[in-house]
Amino acid sequence: MIPVPSDKALVPFVSVDDMMQLIHHIGVEPMLLGLAEYIEADFRRWELFDKTPRIASHSAEGVIELMPTSDGEVYGFKYVNGHPKNTREGLQTVTAFGLLAEVATGYPVLLSEMTMLTAMRTAATSAMVAKHLAPRGARVMAMIGNGAQAEFQTLAMKAVCGIDTVRLYDIDPAATAKCARNLTGRGLDIIACESPEEAIEGAQIVTTCTADKQYATILTDNMVGPGIHINAIGGDCPGKTELAPAVLQRSTIFVEFPPQTRIEGEIQQLAPDHPVTELWQVISGTAPGRTAPEQITLFDSVGFAIEDFSALRYVRDRLPGTGYYHDLDLLADPDDPRDLFGMLLRADPG
Amino acid sequence: MIPVPSDKALVPFVSVDDMMQLIHHIGVEPMLLGLAEYIEADFRRWELFDKTPRIASHSAEGVIELMPTSDGEVYGFKYVNGHPKNTREGLQTVTAFGLLAEVATGYPVLLSEMTMLTAMRTAATSAMVAKHLAPRGARVMAMIGNGAQAEFQTLAMKAVCGIDTVRLYDIDPAATAKCARNLTGRGLDIIACESPEEAIEGAQIVTTCTADKQYATILTDNMVGPGIHINAIGGDCPGKTELAPAVLQRSTIFVEFPPQTRIEGEIQQLAPDHPVTELWQVISGTAPGRTAPEQITLFDSVGFAIEDFSALRYVRDRLPGTGYYHDLDLLADPDDPRDLFGMLLRADPG
Repeated sequence: MIPVPSDKALVPFVSVDDMMQLIHHIGVEPMLLGLAEYIEADFRRWELFDKTPRIASHSAEGVIELMPTSDGEVYGFKYVNGHPKNTREGLQTVTAFGLLAEVATGYPVLLSEMTMLTAMRTAATSAMVAKHLAPRGARVMAMIGNGAQAEFQTLAMKAVCGIDTVRLYDIDPAATAKCARNLTGRGLDIIACESPEEAIEGAQIVTTCTADKQYATILTDNMVGPGIHINAIGGDCPGKTELAPAVLQRSTIFVEFPPQTRIEGEIQQLAPDHPVTELWQVISGTAPGRTAPEQITLFDSVGFAIEDFSALRYVRDRLPGTGYYHDLDLLADPDDPRDLFGMLLRADPG
Repeated sequence: MIPVPSDKALVPFVSVDDMMQLIHHIGVEPMLLGLAEYIEADFRRWELFDKTPRIASHSAEGVIELMPTSDGEVYGFKYVNGHPKNTREGLQTVTAFGLLAEVATGYPVLLSEMTMLTAMRTAATSAMVAKHLAPRGARVMAMIGNGAQAEFQTLAMKAVCGIDTVRLYDIDPAATAKCARNLTGRGLDIIACESPEEAIEGAQIVTTCTADKQYATILTDNMVGPGIHINAIGGDCPGKTELAPAVLQRSTIFVEFPPQTRIEGEIQQLAPDHPVTELWQVISGTAPGRTAPEQITLFDSVGFAIEDFSALRYVRDRLPGTGYYHDLDLLADPDDPRDLFGMLLRADPG
């Protein structure tokens, strides 16, 4: 007789399919809004968190990272890889999963896919930041790089900041066509552009999200006029940037966590003491955000563990009653904690 | 219509019940032997591994740790907590799970419970080390602390080192009774003792494995005679030790990874430059192990990521064909990697 695991041994698991069903159940835009609220709330209490730069294992092909954090009551971490060559083999560049656990007991309380969820949280973070930094009344976004993140970024900017027009550009017209097709019927004017210069015409928000693992220049200095917010997503690991240094020099730069962004973000191109503003200070009201209409604000986004934590927290809160999870027998839970071997003996089928 | 995930999206998951069935399928002692061989093989190629001390998140109640490593082809990590107070609430002090991934793609290839597996690998490591360090012809082990690890430790020493007698002692006689009962019928002479002094009479191997998170003195100086091997399992985090400093001073000390052991092991009681020998050097033949019969050898065991890696590798190799796993839909795998949003759209039930 095989004993049935107790409640304590079971950890709710959200599969990729569960996550997709949860997103549709809540609605893509309402969930992006909800995630932005959770992320903003955690940026407000930023000082509470245990902050460690991600722990990276680099190889010639890519990187595998663990991103842990804790607010003292709940612990979370994300496993994430970044392998730019994967697309050539039909694999995702980035896959991820994450976990929440109780600090008081160390017991995991949620295991979740995070490939979908990371795309959602990255977009929600971008939009929450743009809400604080973009010029007032921004309605047009240029989306440069129309890969896996593009639709999420666009819909988050619509849901959170109220953009009504997206101008798409990708070096591969097929990516732009895919993105335009996926965004159709969601109340946005969608304009496919043939150059980055065309894409940024009239845009108050410029999002760059390209995938090459190299120093690339997606935005050159002469392309960037005054009074815009740049949401730079793609420069997110050592050796990978998207913006010309001159653009950075003209921008007021906002970052998640300076020790990480200086290694991984666009600002790896600048001096190590180049001034940056931490976003949590803007959001909690202790540092200024945009101070003038003609200013160029730049969010040098690399993604930080607290955003994953917020996203997992959101999923955990929305999960009960939905059925979009199943329980995993992940933890050994003997009746007598000192009798782990007895538990093994009782499971003997022979 | 909900698309079926492709093979690439699925990760084999070994639940606690799967693990227990796998252990019985292989046999407890044969699996301990197999694990010891895998761990020994990885100690031999120690220099190949990416070695990072574990990443710990400490709280008043305990610790949550991530233990990553990589041999350049395969990446692994373990999540493990240590919460001594948990037993009072009927929870395990230590629970764990682990993962293996391909370095070349970053894709996970195995997710496994590791509460059972950690008990097995800790015991297999102890026995593999004792095989190298214990006095020749050792047949008697004293097992001090008869909690969750005791039976695993005992059976590993039987399978790997050939002990035929175990002398049990615990401050709680009920724990000793439980341990004696669980070990009955496995070809060992089992002697329940009423004091640690009685337990170590005639023992060539002394294993200490008690659970209090404090400086305790399980072995005092006058208890320890010449010509024994001490396998110290319980001193494995800052502030938790089991041996009197004088015992350490008289012993030749062997450790897994000095930077970690100096913080977590028995040797946190000694000067930071107290000489220790790295086990991988003994096992690969570049440093001496036991050099005299009257010597006291001490394995100051704290557990290292490479041992978990070896254990996961063993499980992965033994899993095919057994059916003791099921596939988890953990990774998003769109047909077109750039079309993650399209994958989400196609999963819309409405």
